[in-house]
Amino acid sequence: MNDISSGKLRGITKLADANGRFKMMAIDQRGSMVQALADVLNTGKANVQYEDVAALKTLITGVLSPNATAVLTDPIYGHPYSITEIPRDVALLLAYEESGYVSEGVSENERLSNPIKNWSIAKAQRAGADAIKLLAYYHPDASPATLKHQQAFVRHVGDECEKHDLPFLLELVSYALKGTAKSVGFAKQKPDLVIRSVAEFTDASYKVDILKLEFPADLKYTADYQESSFYAGDSAYEIAQVKDICQQLDETSTLPWVILSAGVDIEEFIENVHLATEAGASGFLCGRAIWKDAVQYYPDTDAVSRFLENEATTNFRHANEAAENALPWFNHRHFGGVENIQIAKQSANWYQAY
Amino acid sequence: MNDISSGKLRGITKLADANGRFKMMAIDQRGSMVQALADVLNTGKANVQYEDVAALKTLITGVLSPNATAVLTDPIYGHPYSITEIPRDVALLLAYEESGYVSEGVSENERLSNPIKNWSIAKAQRAGADAIKLLAYYHPDASPATLKHQQAFVRHVGDECEKHDLPFLLELVSYALKGTAKSVGFAKQKPDLVIRSVAEFTDASYKVDILKLEFPADLKYTADYQESSFYAGDSAYEIAQVKDICQQLDETSTLPWVILSAGVDIEEFIENVHLATEAGASGFLCGRAIWKDAVQYYPDTDAVSRFLENEATTNFRHANEAAENALPWFNHRHFGGVENIQIAKQSANWYQAY
Repeated sequence: MNDISSGKLRGITKLADANGRFKMMAIDQRGSMVQALADVLNTGKANVQYEDVAALKTLITGVLSPNATAVLTDPIYGHPYSITEIPRDVALLLAYEESGYVSEGVSENERLSNPIKNWSIAKAQRAGADAIKLLAYYHPDASPATLKHQQAFVRHVGDECEKHDLPFLLELVSYALKGTAKSVGFAKQKPDLVIRSVAEFTDASYKVDILKLEFPADLKYTADYQESSFYAGDSAYEIAQVKDICQQLDETSTLPWVILSAGVDIEEFIENVHLATEAGASGFLCGRAIWKDAVQYYPDTDAVSRFLENEATTNFRHANEAAENALPWFNHRHFGGVENIQIAKQSANWYQAY
Repeated sequence: MNDISSGKLRGITKLADANGRFKMMAIDQRGSMVQALADVLNTGKANVQYEDVAALKTLITGVLSPNATAVLTDPIYGHPYSITEIPRDVALLLAYEESGYVSEGVSENERLSNPIKNWSIAKAQRAGADAIKLLAYYHPDASPATLKHQQAFVRHVGDECEKHDLPFLLELVSYALKGTAKSVGFAKQKPDLVIRSVAEFTDASYKVDILKLEFPADLKYTADYQESSFYAGDSAYEIAQVKDICQQLDETSTLPWVILSAGVDIEEFIENVHLATEAGASGFLCGRAIWKDAVQYYPDTDAVSRFLENEATTNFRHANEAAENALPWFNHRHFGGVENIQIAKQSANWYQAY
C-alpha cells in the first residue's frame, strides 16, 4: 500500500478530473500579462493599470474555468477579483513565487526566484487553495550559488506544503546561460536540461507532489514539423528522437507530471500534449496557448468575451481531448493504482497523531 | 455589496450545488451509530469494535456520497477510512464536537457539549475540510452555567473558523429539561425552543455562517398527518400552524439555514424538507433518514451495499428533489444575490492585508 496524507489526497483528487487526468488552466501570469497589455494599449509596462490586469483576468477566468479541472491564479491581480468566477467543482491553485526573476549577486544570465512579499502558504490555504504552485527557473549548469538558492527555495516550499498538508506542484523552467532560448542550439540542449532538472527535484527531500514541466524538446526545431506554421526553419531532431526524449523524461520522473504551454501557439501545444501523454504525462496546466489571443482585443471587453467564448473555448476543448490519453495520476508508478492508496497512519488514533 | 472572506466563500460555494442549494449527507454519527451496531450485533455498546464502525461508515460514504453536494464525517471512525471514497466534487465537512454530552457540574437534565480531545480546526483544515460543523445541544431555559458553557463553546469555534477562514456550520439540537422529547408536551414547546435558539446564535458575535436546524415543529404530532405511518396519536398543532412556525423561524434566521433529519423516517423527513424549503431553508444536511435502515444488515456487507444502492439511493434522490425548492444560499437576504457578493478587502493589497 502507498500511504498519502489526507490533505494531499483531497487536494490532488480535486485538481484532476474524476478519471485522474489534469486539465488545468493557468491565469497566474503577471509579468507577461502586463507586457501583453502594454503592447496592446501601446504604452509602457509601468503605465499598465492594476485594474486592467485584474479585469482581464476576471474575464478569462469567468469564461474559461468551467472547462478546467483546476484553475491556477495569483494572489495579486487574480485571486481577489477572480475567485468568485471559479465554479464549485473546479479546484484552486495559488502561485507562491514573485513573477520573473532577479540576478542579484550572481551572473546576469542566471535566474533567482523569490517569494511574493507578505504572502504565505498559510494564507493561501486559508484563502481556499487546494494546492500550491511554485515556478522555479533552473539550469543545472548554473553557478553553485544559484543552484543552492533555487534548491533551498524549492525545499522551503516543500516543507511548508508538508506542514499545511497541501499538494505541492513544482514548475521548472529552463533558460539559456548563453545566447537565446529561441535557437536551434538551445533546442538541442533542452532535453538534457529538462531531464536533469527533473532528476534533481524528484529527490524526496524536496517533497514535490506533481511536476509541471516544459515539453522536453522543441517542435519548432523538429524536422517532421517542416510543414507546420510553427516550424522555425532549422532542425535539432526528428520526431522519433523527440519521442525517445519524452520517454526518458517519463522514466526520470518518479512523480506524476503535467505539461505546460510556455505561450506556444495552440497547434504546437496540442502536439506537445499528445506526445507527452503518450509518454506518460498525466495532463496539462496551460494558460497562454489557450487564451493569449484574447488580450489583443482589450479594452473592448465584448470582443475579449467573444474570443474567449469561441476560439479560446475551442482551444480548451482540443487540449482536453488530447489529454484523454493521459495517465491517471493514481496509476503513476509512484501510487500504483487507486486500490493501493490509503490514508497515512490510518487508525483509531489518526486524529490525535495527525 | 456584501463582503465575504475568500476561504468562507470558496467553502460555502463547494458545500452547495451549482445553484446554491445544500444537499448534504451526514455520516459523522458516533454514539448513535455504535448503539445501532450494538443492537444489530446483539451486544453492548462497549463491545462494538472500532473496525466495524469504520467499515460501515466507509460503505455508506462510498455508495451514497456521489448523491451529495457535501459529506459530513467525523475524524475518529470516518475520516481516516472514508475520505478516499468522497468524489472530487463533493465537499468535505468535519465535525468538531465530541459525540453526546455531559452534565458535569450542572443539573443532570442539562447538556454540555465538548470538543474532541486532541482534535482541532487547524487539523481539520489541513486534512482537507471545506467547512466545520459543530453540534451544540441547547435549551434557552437551561441554567446560566449551562447557557454560558454552550455559548462560550460556540463562540470559540466561531473564532477559530474565522482565524482559519473556514465556513462555520452550527447545528442546534434542543432537548427536554423535564420528561421526554417524545411527547405531545415537548412537541408544543419545540417551536419556541428552536426559534429562541436561532435568535441567540445568529448574533454576529458567534460568527456562524450556516445554521443546521431541527424542524421547528413535530409532524408526528400534527393533526393533518393522522393518516401517516409516523403519526404519534396525539396532536399539538395543525399544518397551517406548522407553516407559520417555519415562517417565523425563517424570519428569525438572519443566516442561511438547512434542515437536519434527527433520524426520523424518510417520509417524515421529505415532508420536513418541503415545509422548510417553502419557508426559506437552503437545503438539508441529513444522515439517518436516508441510510439508517442499512445498519440492520451488518455484518452482511453485501446486503448493506444492496440496501444503500437501492432504497437509500432512492431516499437520497427524493430528498434532493424536495430540496430543488430551496432558497439558494446566495439569495438569502444575508447575501442579497450573487451579484452583490464580493471578496472582502478587494484591492491590489489584498494578499498583504489578508
